[in-house]
Amino acid sequence: MFKQRLFTPGPTPVPEEVLLELARPMFHHRTAEYRRMLEQLTLEMKYVLGTQADVYTLTGSGSVAMEAAVACVVAPGETMIVVRGGKFGERWSELGEAFGARVVNLDVPWGTPPSPGLIAEALKAHPDAVAVYTTQCETSTATVTDIEAIAKVVAKTPALLVVDGISSIGAMPFRMDAWGVDIAVTGSQKALMLPPGLAFIACSAKAWKKIEATKGHAYYADLKAYRKALAADWDQPYTPANVMVRAALKALAMIKAEGLETIWVETRRRAEAIRAAAKALGLKVYSEAPSDSVTALVVPDGVDGEQLPKVMAKQYNVRPAGGQGKLKGKIVRFTTMGYTDAFDILAAVAALEMALAKLGYKVDFGAGVAAAQKVLAQ
Amino acid sequence: MFKQRLFTPGPTPVPEEVLLELARPMFHHRTAEYRRMLEQLTLEMKYVLGTQADVYTLTGSGSVAMEAAVACVVAPGETMIVVRGGKFGERWSELGEAFGARVVNLDVPWGTPPSPGLIAEALKAHPDAVAVYTTQCETSTATVTDIEAIAKVVAKTPALLVVDGISSIGAMPFRMDAWGVDIAVTGSQKALMLPPGLAFIACSAKAWKKIEATKGHAYYADLKAYRKALAADWDQPYTPANVMVRAALKALAMIKAEGLETIWVETRRRAEAIRAAAKALGLKVYSEAPSDSVTALVVPDGVDGEQLPKVMAKQYNVRPAGGQGKLKGKIVRFTTMGYTDAFDILAAVAALEMALAKLGYKVDFGAGVAAAQKVLAQ
Repeated sequence: MFKQRLFTPGPTPVPEEVLLELARPMFHHRTAEYRRMLEQLTLEMKYVLGTQADVYTLTGSGSVAMEAAVACVVAPGETMIVVRGGKFGERWSELGEAFGARVVNLDVPWGTPPSPGLIAEALKAHPDAVAVYTTQCETSTATVTDIEAIAKVVAKTPALLVVDGISSIGAMPFRMDAWGVDIAVTGSQKALMLPPGLAFIACSAKAWKKIEATKGHAYYADLKAYRKALAADWDQPYTPANVMVRAALKALAMIKAEGLETIWVETRRRAEAIRAAAKALGLKVYSEAPSDSVTALVVPDGVDGEQLPKVMAKQYNVRPAGGQGKLKGKIVRFTTMGYTDAFDILAAVAALEMALAKLGYKVDFGAGVAAAQKVLAQ
Repeated sequence: MFKQRLFTPGPTPVPEEVLLELARPMFHHRTAEYRRMLEQLTLEMKYVLGTQADVYTLTGSGSVAMEAAVACVVAPGETMIVVRGGKFGERWSELGEAFGARVVNLDVPWGTPPSPGLIAEALKAHPDAVAVYTTQCETSTATVTDIEAIAKVVAKTPALLVVDGISSIGAMPFRMDAWGVDIAVTGSQKALMLPPGLAFIACSAKAWKKIEATKGHAYYADLKAYRKALAADWDQPYTPANVMVRAALKALAMIKAEGLETIWVETRRRAEAIRAAAKALGLKVYSEAPSDSVTALVVPDGVDGEQLPKVMAKQYNVRPAGGQGKLKGKIVRFTTMGYTDAFDILAAVAALEMALAKLGYKVDFGAGVAAAQKVLAQ
């Protein structure tokens, strides 16, 4: 018998206390009690995003909030700049195409973040661009983008900076107002220690000006409807996933008790531990700018990269993710965000060693574990 | 101490066994195990909708599936006919406006269903209409539409028949294929005994022909993406609410064990019991064509209609819904669908009697309960 240890970069493990909240009796959402819940959740999410702007809670995957950030912002024929360095950058691009935007794709090699200079050039070449769409942590390549530096560039122009923070916000530094991010999007199933099913979005005053001036093509994802309902006394335009909202309050209370900055430090330490273990085992980290919320390791030559995560899951109930798209069979990814602790990381490294050995890789058992432990002991 | 008894027409009560499913450990969705769950859910939902067509599971409120049924079907400038006899008929109309359709509203008085003749006339007057949008149970007025009769009219034309079955499917007869419905939409939080958060949609071959020919403006609600993912091995295009899908299998197994037709009969009997109780208490049923899934009673003269549901909730923990929009303060609504049994109905009627008496209405205590009991004893 092996306990389940989930290392997929979403969904991530959910604390038992949060799971139990989901099992409490059903209740109605058009009540004063629920309005207070939504008010509290909005307040907690403002803390997580580092913003004074209201945060809207949508019922759906993170992608529905990404849709809101495109469909309410870019009118058909308007130009949007998209940084495309992985599967989730591609999603911004697909959203733009779906809604008739003129999409300028900035293709960066997978595993590489865009430089602020690249964004500055693109804005110069396309002064009509209404927004720049980026991804703080590109989950498919486990690469982090320096949003703060890019925000400085975008702030000088009329364009908005839109950030997909789905697999970073809550796990790594993100300061929406201080950095000058215009639209931030996140989801429940990553650093927030919840199941999938809620999406969050906040907009700066600059963003609201553009949204108000835009005849969008959104209904379910219409940000104006969410703003109006929230202002009308903490309401939502469509039936909310009320049990998820109640559970979110428990998860966010845990986050607040720990402190966001402490969580950022701990998440980074767990990521550094995995990177140190990889080095000790002779493995390479895939990304040039590795994220702290998810780590991608290159599968070493001679090892079957599609088998590696499967063997870990099947033999040891330790479940990392493989690669997606063109990285299929080439990397193995471990989340270090959310409800994951130092000893879970040691288990992951130990299972990695054992699976690598099974697949023919020469492993000095315990070398990775010791290297990780050294980092975690700091 | 009074136990909570929820009679709001969504969310409805969720069985304890289903709630406990929500509390099981988090798991990853890109696995063979989850694909089998989605395959099974699709199969169960085909049974519930009475169709051989695949049923797509979207993460969101029922409204996101309504959006899919408009945004993927009606191109900007095309004509759609909407039956508007309450808040949810209005939603079809708003969706059409949001996506640039030419919306022909058939306004029927609230509490009245549209006649097949009205639909036939509208189709004759607008032969270019690509679809007719209807609501099987208009929750805001507790009125049922004869979808079977309307389907016969629409089937003779090139137009599609789209049905919002959110607060009817699973509770009352609905036979998508046998009746000739082209698009059916439902949600998790009504007859399916689940929390809000999942939406379901199925499309006939005739509907797919139109969807394929339409350059829609959907991304998150793009039916083609859901069809492609399902065909690719029971996948979904965006991160699904996987814990809800697992819980849905439990709820649907309970529905199957009871049998859909038995549930329809039992739901009708509960509704008839409430209607009989109302009559015995001298109250009127609001609708001319009362639904079996939710019943609206007219608040009698001299009773404060906004207070009535509040007193029931506050004093007895029995929670019906009041009226919405122009019916605010004028009706009180009780769901009879989902996880509700005969003795819950007796409690609701007893609490209604007690609250009416408190609010100054002359009540012959037990008269309503006895009338309901007579029906339930059949």
